[in-house]
Amino acid sequence: MCSGSPDDFLASAVEAAKQAGEIIRSGFYGAKQVENKGEVDLVTETDKKCEELIFTFLKKQYSDHKFIGEETAAAGGNMELTNEPTWIVDPIDGTFNFVHGYPFVCVSIGLTIGKIATVGVVYNPIMDELFTAVRGKGAFLNGKPIRVSSQDELVKSLLAAEVIASHEKSIVDASTNQINSLLFKVRSLRMSGSCALDLCGIACGRLDLFYLVGFGGPWSSSRDVAAGAVIISEAGGLVFDPSGKDFDITAQRVAASNPLLKDAFVGALQQSE
Amino acid sequence: MCSGSPDDFLASAVEAAKQAGEIIRSGFYGAKQVENKGEVDLVTETDKKCEELIFTFLKKQYSDHKFIGEETAAAGGNMELTNEPTWIVDPIDGTFNFVHGYPFVCVSIGLTIGKIATVGVVYNPIMDELFTAVRGKGAFLNGKPIRVSSQDELVKSLLAAEVIASHEKSIVDASTNQINSLLFKVRSLRMSGSCALDLCGIACGRLDLFYLVGFGGPWSSSRDVAAGAVIISEAGGLVFDPSGKDFDITAQRVAASNPLLKDAFVGALQQSE
Repeated sequence: MCSGSPDDFLASAVEAAKQAGEIIRSGFYGAKQVENKGEVDLVTETDKKCEELIFTFLKKQYSDHKFIGEETAAAGGNMELTNEPTWIVDPIDGTFNFVHGYPFVCVSIGLTIGKIATVGVVYNPIMDELFTAVRGKGAFLNGKPIRVSSQDELVKSLLAAEVIASHEKSIVDASTNQINSLLFKVRSLRMSGSCALDLCGIACGRLDLFYLVGFGGPWSSSRDVAAGAVIISEAGGLVFDPSGKDFDITAQRVAASNPLLKDAFVGALQQSE
Repeated sequence: MCSGSPDDFLASAVEAAKQAGEIIRSGFYGAKQVENKGEVDLVTETDKKCEELIFTFLKKQYSDHKFIGEETAAAGGNMELTNEPTWIVDPIDGTFNFVHGYPFVCVSIGLTIGKIATVGVVYNPIMDELFTAVRGKGAFLNGKPIRVSSQDELVKSLLAAEVIASHEKSIVDASTNQINSLLFKVRSLRMSGSCALDLCGIACGRLDLFYLVGFGGPWSSSRDVAAGAVIISEAGGLVFDPSGKDFDITAQRVAASNPLLKDAFVGALQQSE
């Protein structure tokens, strides 16, 4: 069993995210000084430093909890999500942005209890935006309550998506064909390069629609989405599989919107495949 | 002849942009309260209010200067850019972002003298980022010098572009076909919804490549680009036509990058058409 209340877990997650945010911030503003050949090292190093900091901080307080991070993802997903309290952490979401100095970078820390996303913290240290939620207690941006948009027409909706740059033709084609089909139906398209921040954009109503197909690996989707999922649902929104079925954290596909747009969005996504 | 030095013009433009920024900020945070049917009015009203403020402010000091803004654009471009000092103003660049509360919104104020872009101010009041430049005197972000990236490989470059949501198949197809072709060659793609801020992203090295084809109208490109062009060139970058030729402010097409990437980028753009 877990010791501590969800509010305690939230406070710990916020503290860990803020400390990791400091490391990200200093790397972010130093990144442009790094030689191009050193970019990968900078990301790997900052990523590792942040994850260690977050895990050490949380494990000290919650030694009986489970943890999913980079190593779990690297191990190819040979681990099942159990009913135990489980922290799912992405120390830097938006790594290309981090390297290039594009300000959509964040720490994402989620906690599942009984497999249900219960606490979510997404912190963008560059724009100093802290998104938080505890199941049943609402969602907040820098302490102020947030809410999904009340948009109910696709044609007036702002869509966020990510396309995948690749040398593989089938991947790029699938990606742009889907975008092409959706562009006939929505108002405009944004690409930020950070899945967790796109989810928070839905939660606070800046964006109306989001989908992402083809994450990096079997655990990437859970690491990007765990925190955002609580935040969206506490802001009155929905996270689902692009097919309209329940979101599956190992499926490498996710979509999100307010409840008014879901059916029309799923319809448009299905026609776009 | 113009009275005042470029530094005076810059100070005036900054003051006008900051004042307009206040109006944008209050509209931005109030936008989500507006009924959907009132969106267009909110944009029109805020746009008009900002342009009036900027024009009144600048005309009071520079009564002999010329001014290009919304009405010029609306008049279908029946006006030639002359050698006179000419202020080219876009009171809100990123109008969809403004309506949706997505933080890429800015004021863009440029001054041409002898048809040469001489002063540029781009202010994002939401992120409080002020980009400034005077010809021959460098480019700055919130007072600190900025510089384009030193990236020299397309495959490691971050590309910014905008696709056009439309019901017209030929427009959407052209747009996504071009994206498709470029995605094989670059690292990743961002879409912010603000041309002026994308140009400033190139200037400060957050982005490596940018192009936009198919502006709203004959004067839209000048209004979006006039300020950004000075800022980029003072930051060591280039603004050009996607064909590689000189940028033409009435051509509704623009591209930008650092000097190291230009040839490869133009090549990639030509293959993508």
